[in-house]
Amino acid sequence: MPELDPFAGLAAVLGAAPVHVDPHRQARTGVPEVVYAAGKSPRLTLAAVQALLERQPLGRALISRASAEVVDALRSELEPSGATVLVAPNGGTVLAMRADAKPPLETGGVVALLTAGASDAAAADEAAWVAREMGCHVVRADDVGVAGLHRLEAPLRLLREHGADVVIVVAGMDGALPSVVSGLVDVPVIGLPTSVGYGLGGGGVAALLSMLQTCAPGLVVVNIDNGVGAGATAALIANRVAAARNTG
Amino acid sequence: MPELDPFAGLAAVLGAAPVHVDPHRQARTGVPEVVYAAGKSPRLTLAAVQALLERQPLGRALISRASAEVVDALRSELEPSGATVLVAPNGGTVLAMRADAKPPLETGGVVALLTAGASDAAAADEAAWVAREMGCHVVRADDVGVAGLHRLEAPLRLLREHGADVVIVVAGMDGALPSVVSGLVDVPVIGLPTSVGYGLGGGGVAALLSMLQTCAPGLVVVNIDNGVGAGATAALIANRVAAARNTG
Amino acid sequence: MPELDPFAGLAAVLGAAPVHVDPHRQARTGVPEVVYAAGKSPRLTLAAVQALLERQPLGRALISRASAEVVDALRSELEPSGATVLVAPNGGTVLAMRADAKPPLETGGVVALLTAGASDAAAADEAAWVAREMGCHVVRADDVGVAGLHRLEAPLRLLREHGADVVIVVAGMDGALPSVVSGLVDVPVIGLPTSVGYGLGGGGVAALLSMLQTCAPGLVVVNIDNGVGAGATAALIANRVAAARNTG
Amino acid sequence: MPELDPFAGLAAVLGAAPVHVDPHRQARTGVPEVVYAAGKSPRLTLAAVQALLERQPLGRALISRASAEVVDALRSELEPSGATVLVAPNGGTVLAMRADAKPPLETGGVVALLTAGASDAAAADEAAWVAREMGCHVVRADDVGVAGLHRLEAPLRLLREHGADVVIVVAGMDGALPSVVSGLVDVPVIGLPTSVGYGLGGGGVAALLSMLQTCAPGLVVVNIDNGVGAGATAALIANRVAAARNTG
Amino acid sequence: MPELDPFAGLAAVLGAAPVHVDPHRQARTGVPEVVYAAGKSPRLTLAAVQALLERQPLGRALISRASAEVVDALRSELEPSGATVLVAPNGGTVLAMRADAKPPLETGGVVALLTAGASDAAAADEAAWVAREMGCHVVRADDVGVAGLHRLEAPLRLLREHGADVVIVVAGMDGALPSVVSGLVDVPVIGLPTSVGYGLGGGGVAALLSMLQTCAPGLVVVNIDNGVGAGATAALIANRVAAARNTG
Amino acid sequence: MPELDPFAGLAAVLGAAPVHVDPHRQARTGVPEVVYAAGKSPRLTLAAVQALLERQPLGRALISRASAEVVDALRSELEPSGATVLVAPNGGTVLAMRADAKPPLETGGVVALLTAGASDAAAADEAAWVAREMGCHVVRADDVGVAGLHRLEAPLRLLREHGADVVIVVAGMDGALPSVVSGLVDVPVIGLPTSVGYGLGGGGVAALLSMLQTCAPGLVVVNIDNGVGAGATAALIANRVAAARNTG
Amino acid sequence: MPELDPFAGLAAVLGAAPVHVDPHRQARTGVPEVVYAAGKSPRLTLAAVQALLERQPLGRALISRASAEVVDALRSELEPSGATVLVAPNGGTVLAMRADAKPPLETGGVVALLTAGASDAAAADEAAWVAREMGCHVVRADDVGVAGLHRLEAPLRLLREHGADVVIVVAGMDGALPSVVSGLVDVPVIGLPTSVGYGLGGGGVAALLSMLQTCAPGLVVVNIDNGVGAGATAALIANRVAAARNTG
Amino acid sequence: MPELDPFAGLAAVLGAAPVHVDPHRQARTGVPEVVYAAGKSPRLTLAAVQALLERQPLGRALISRASAEVVDALRSELEPSGATVLVAPNGGTVLAMRADAKPPLETGGVVALLTAGASDAAAADEAAWVAREMGCHVVRADDVGVAGLHRLEAPLRLLREHGADVVIVVAGMDGALPSVVSGLVDVPVIGLPTSVGYGLGGGGVAALLSMLQTCAPGLVVVNIDNGVGAGATAALIANRVAAARNTG
Repeated sequence: MPELDPFAGLAAVLGAAPVHVDPHRQARTGVPEVVYAAGKSPRLTLAAVQALLERQPLGRALISRASAEVVDALRSELEPSGATVLVAPNGGTVLAMRADAKPPLETGGVVALLTAGASDAAAADEAAWVAREMGCHVVRADDVGVAGLHRLEAPLRLLREHGADVVIVVAGMDGALPSVVSGLVDVPVIGLPTSVGYGLGGGGVAALLSMLQTCAPGLVVVNIDNGVGAGATAALIANRVAAARNTG
Repeated sequence: MPELDPFAGLAAVLGAAPVHVDPHRQARTGVPEVVYAAGKSPRLTLAAVQALLERQPLGRALISRASAEVVDALRSELEPSGATVLVAPNGGTVLAMRADAKPPLETGGVVALLTAGASDAAAADEAAWVAREMGCHVVRADDVGVAGLHRLEAPLRLLREHGADVVIVVAGMDGALPSVVSGLVDVPVIGLPTSVGYGLGGGGVAALLSMLQTCAPGLVVVNIDNGVGAGATAALIANRVAAARNTG
Repeated sequence: MPELDPFAGLAAVLGAAPVHVDPHRQARTGVPEVVYAAGKSPRLTLAAVQALLERQPLGRALISRASAEVVDALRSELEPSGATVLVAPNGGTVLAMRADAKPPLETGGVVALLTAGASDAAAADEAAWVAREMGCHVVRADDVGVAGLHRLEAPLRLLREHGADVVIVVAGMDGALPSVVSGLVDVPVIGLPTSVGYGLGGGGVAALLSMLQTCAPGLVVVNIDNGVGAGATAALIANRVAAARNTG
Repeated sequence: MPELDPFAGLAAVLGAAPVHVDPHRQARTGVPEVVYAAGKSPRLTLAAVQALLERQPLGRALISRASAEVVDALRSELEPSGATVLVAPNGGTVLAMRADAKPPLETGGVVALLTAGASDAAAADEAAWVAREMGCHVVRADDVGVAGLHRLEAPLRLLREHGADVVIVVAGMDGALPSVVSGLVDVPVIGLPTSVGYGLGGGGVAALLSMLQTCAPGLVVVNIDNGVGAGATAALIANRVAAARNTG
Repeated sequence: MPELDPFAGLAAVLGAAPVHVDPHRQARTGVPEVVYAAGKSPRLTLAAVQALLERQPLGRALISRASAEVVDALRSELEPSGATVLVAPNGGTVLAMRADAKPPLETGGVVALLTAGASDAAAADEAAWVAREMGCHVVRADDVGVAGLHRLEAPLRLLREHGADVVIVVAGMDGALPSVVSGLVDVPVIGLPTSVGYGLGGGGVAALLSMLQTCAPGLVVVNIDNGVGAGATAALIANRVAAARNTG
Repeated sequence: MPELDPFAGLAAVLGAAPVHVDPHRQARTGVPEVVYAAGKSPRLTLAAVQALLERQPLGRALISRASAEVVDALRSELEPSGATVLVAPNGGTVLAMRADAKPPLETGGVVALLTAGASDAAAADEAAWVAREMGCHVVRADDVGVAGLHRLEAPLRLLREHGADVVIVVAGMDGALPSVVSGLVDVPVIGLPTSVGYGLGGGGVAALLSMLQTCAPGLVVVNIDNGVGAGATAALIANRVAAARNTG
Repeated sequence: MPELDPFAGLAAVLGAAPVHVDPHRQARTGVPEVVYAAGKSPRLTLAAVQALLERQPLGRALISRASAEVVDALRSELEPSGATVLVAPNGGTVLAMRADAKPPLETGGVVALLTAGASDAAAADEAAWVAREMGCHVVRADDVGVAGLHRLEAPLRLLREHGADVVIVVAGMDGALPSVVSGLVDVPVIGLPTSVGYGLGGGGVAALLSMLQTCAPGLVVVNIDNGVGAGATAALIANRVAAARNTG
Repeated sequence: MPELDPFAGLAAVLGAAPVHVDPHRQARTGVPEVVYAAGKSPRLTLAAVQALLERQPLGRALISRASAEVVDALRSELEPSGATVLVAPNGGTVLAMRADAKPPLETGGVVALLTAGASDAAAADEAAWVAREMGCHVVRADDVGVAGLHRLEAPLRLLREHGADVVIVVAGMDGALPSVVSGLVDVPVIGLPTSVGYGLGGGGVAALLSMLQTCAPGLVVVNIDNGVGAGATAALIANRVAAARNTG
């Protein structure tokens, strides 16, 4: 009954596919498309992943916020054709690769990741995998929480040894960790608050607000649980530094 | 035209003075009355101070949130009769003493006070002077902010050397300092957030929320800028410990 | 496929276990580690409990916010080896003990607990069990709500008779109870708001805000439902008093 | 240049005065018009008061939230013609009476007013004067704050002796007082929160929220500082009871 | 293992039952106890209802916020012994009556109830049943929403004909209805906002705020969905009027 | 047991059906009734749809926020009698038509709909179907998000070619799209924010606030996800323009 | 010291004036530029007005939120050269006209304006003057507040008689008026909330939220006090209707 | 009366100056200290500036949020000794230089600054001057607002021509500009929201929230008006890139 469908008119005129793709985005901005699976049905997510896999030059597609159902759908539909579906250690972030996928081109950029507590790991995975897909080397230390400052020394020494170009600090309850770190290093710090905690200021709100309030210049933030945003910006920074190193 | 005044009826019946006083409060709870001057006219504040000075056994009265006008009123009205009016170094907190005032009885309790930044000093004064009026010894270190952790060592060593029974940590932008401190000491820590900062989470909100969210057990909080509350509770704790020491 | 795992690099360097432990925390701060089970899978919670049981000197481990699934997992995994798993009367808080567990060393500190209503009991359990693990004697009276002031007399008399060193007042809808109590006793009061209530100010927000607003000095607060924080701070206070009594 | 004035067209058609008056409101609802002076210029307030004085049958007009400038304007303009301008003890509320004004008709309704602290007095004045203009007998006790429960006994005894038909409880920091009172009396209680306090929940927000949250049925509320609303509703209740008494 | 149970000590001393009851509350305040079932297990709710049924003089017990499970539990446990379990037309509110229950004593008080829309019915039931248990006659008109003002005429005429002593106006999306009604009647109006609506201001927040903001004196409010509070206060008002009528 | 039912009295007097209908609303305001299914049981929704179908002149009824259960109930109850039940492409919005339904009268009004991203489609469907039922021609382009401005050109050209009388811009994360569009067209723009996004400002709040803040005059908004409101207002505008065109 | 000025570089390259103007905006969108004076110095505002007066084809410039200082500056600088400076009856909105200014071209569009109370007049002026500058005929009725519904009849009859194409309803405390009106007319309604009121939901927040929540389709809103936005959109609607009438 | 001063004890022990300085901060983190003047007295600000001028190697000191009084104090105290005091074009940000000050060492880093509207200029100055002090080349274009997209082309071309390493986008009402820009460039973008706007979401809140919500990866944010934070992080990024270029 097409005359009832308000889509009918314009869609024909535009000749548009139901899902728009922006094939030039990565070339234009240096950041790959990531399929955001939250609130999408497994079927819709699968369609987006397949479309992305087809046109992505390296045959790779990242998916964020994937539920167990989405992972199952991806595996049962993609693996028979030889594709690989990898799930991050703390769930949620998924990498799908065609049978002929190639690894991301190593840029030489170095992104460091510190997490305050065990519950910050999933958001950190999301950031790490995005940076990895953008060709960065990722060094990471987990559970370095602010309560025990002595635990911070080893990770800081390591990120200096690896020559980190930028640091992502992931923290939910210990919202002060990014400020502390940014007072101790001379590279930019990206605060990634996570949605842990309960009561007033819970769900990551206190963490985000205290990162915004910090008096430590050199710290910028992304929204609660936005691992993709933190990882992508960190990689943009690291890749620009690396490009300068390579061509300097 | 008294018949228009709805106060008339009951006031006569109760024989009540327009300002009620609670002469037994300090005996009952161990905390002295403090005159809260914010939003009161100088005249009203003066009346309350005079009433308090008359009946307070040691001839001493603390005033919080006193404006310059209030200080002037207190000085011009009280000093001619031999009283003393002392203003805290960062303003706001005032101590009025009759000519025959006696110092508070030393209890032996020890309260430590750490402030994160220079703008936290006025709230710290308020807390310090209350604890002092309750007979405690107050040790204090200012501007130990969380951004430079190395600055924290000397103050912590000192509060251990002085045998602090409780620590008040005053912080506005560096809302994480109380959590950090409470992970390093074995006495209770009271977080006192202060109304500094701007933007989202400004005015002390981020500081209060991150103190509430902290995963460091051993930390309790009072409202933003509530130096009286922090100082009084700290002194209650220290005084109970000291009493046990003295009579143990 | 380790080359895809951004954990790989640093973890090897640090030689770190996936879950960090802080074995010196209790020695340093006097507060034991508590396993926070909310948002953790039963498997992850179990691993944390087992790690804690192994190294905790008395063979005891507290778990907060445990769901029925977590309790089942703990029981089925730990009890076959002779361990005991106790659940608090109102659920959520769990104590696991090795077969050779020893009771906490009695410190002589006395913590009083008052709850305003029946729905405040679970948060009170959490606080009580933490204080108990820290060696305190806990006296408690439930359902003393502010609406009927006459119900407050017996509990207050009792906490005086038991020589309480500190009082925790647990209240969700009757957010005023902590203020009322702190105006009647001469020991510090810790307000523990609970997440009951609906509508505007529901979920414990009104209770927390009115505890923060109270004009009763001598009252400090923890976040909504933070029984661990209230219990730990109360025990720190009581234990310091008790230590002074014992060594005075 | 009237053609530029977008008011011109319709105003002529409607023949409306620039300020609409609702002469039948008091007859219809039993509540007199009160001139709300906040945000109005002295000149505009004066015009409204004069208009009201002219048509109000008893020659009386209440003004709320009047600044000192408004009071001056009212006095200098109205008193030369023999009118009287009375200001409430704590300011803000003003009663203007024509030279030939008559007192309000006594209805026999009895409204009790309790205030928690000294800063609640101005809002209480507003409520009291409205109830008085509606013909009620007002009994009032100030500064009965919740922190000292013993102070509540005398006022409660008095309101029973006066046969209060309804109680207004005015409270800013002690937001629990209305709940406490409503658990002790068998007449309806109206909570009137006031804008005192600072920090989180300040400005009366915590007081309003805790009145809304209370588990004490029998308590209803008005907005922060809305003395007119509390007084008018209380008088409606009391007057209906009184009418039944008189005609029963 | 009683030595682990922190309840043990005091409970014995107080000889208290695990659930406190306040048998004198109805006598003291005129409002019956209502069992609040939300967040209580069916078993706990049943115990509270049984305890109440035993001691309530008329053999009646009201329950609010009862889920289907709670209703089932009440029916299967109480009906075999001859008790009756009635559920309100829109669910949630339940009346349990012993086999020998007596109807509430008719007071002669008249409570009118208007609802704005169909989704406001459950909260209205709660208010109506409470008022009914307190002996009032309840007149009610549903779905009179503000959008069509002509629909308001019949209900207003009826509440005048029935001589309503007070009006409860229940509204979620049409938060203005209580203001409108209070401008048209000369009895007190209680606004009862309900948790309908979505987006900003949803869940009843806009309704509550606009009732608080209204410039219509004569209107008071209760929290979102608090039918018990609205019904109890309305009945207190109506009953006091009725008592005056009867004894006038 | 009718004497227990507080509905009994008035309902009889009013002779009112349990669900009020407003048969003259469409004639009076030009907007048809839409059955809002959220929070209604399938049975209640079905009853409302049936009542509407019976009296709606064209035999058509729109339902918004219909769950899968509601759709099933509508289908199984209505289709046997020859009715048709159509579900919008992205779910939620449903059109039920009697066997003898007639199409809406074409008014000639033209409504354009732009959506920023794929997750905005369901709210857009709701708006589109309402406008369609009001007789408008709807042109629509999806997924034109603000991040790639070049994607905006084709849709804008099309809405000019179709002579759109008004534009609805649907956006959740890209809250700026409505401002951008309103700076490029000379017809009114209605911003329809949608409840996508997480973290601070999530659920559509940031989108709504930035539409309210925009400095682009010519933009008005409706609440988050209120497709019915956006579609109805757009159609009122377009239909008034079209009527002028037809009768000009 | 130009080398210190970070503006220097790019400004030269762009050849840009310090204040950008958008001379094609009115042609493109049909809405004239309005100078927003809040937060601008009188000098800066004057510069913007002069720039606008020079290039605006009719020699007219509207200014919103002008303080008394700004009005003085405009008058003293512009009037000597023969320009006219008109201030709206309730202040804030100002119209400056060159000596050779021409009146706006009458479009034939009709915009109706209703205000709920006297404090809504300034925001209404702003909307009215913008619509007037866009060539509309403006009919307006003030102070028709929702509390007295009978007051609504005359204005509604008038807006029908004048053939209003759209209605702006301005309301601060009576946030329901727009919903009420939109249920009674068949043209689009724009709700313009104003920043009156105090306490919770004050400053226009309750009014805005209840307009957003309304269940009356046909109502759209602008931000609190945004008279320019309401007036501009209303005029866009009315002008499109009028254009169709003229060319139909 | 030193025995009353709670500062006395510890200060002596620590030998601490009343204002702590962190002379190694710039060496450690690469960011210079900036004196935050808001809320400080002119005298206190002057002291901090003098202390900083003395030890800062280049003899330069930046001050943010300086009021006119602070500027006057700086000028009258510093200029007599040959120092220079420069104020940013839009006020607030001040640079003080000793007579022998040296310019910052040019790093070769390039920071681009775009502002959406005229009111964003002061925050942009703050960011620009900080980046300049850190040795960066700053290119800037003002007033490129999102409403007219065509205005964005020239600035974007310029920042590409200058080889910007990072872009700061300053926006208050047009909170979408940073997202738009980050979709068009391949360098990191820092969103700097500013406190313009009124009504709901005003004061920069809507701008900050919509930057946090954006779906454009590659965008990070700082708090409202935090020009120092945006400038310092941008310079850290640009300087690391430049160092790589120089030593590559």
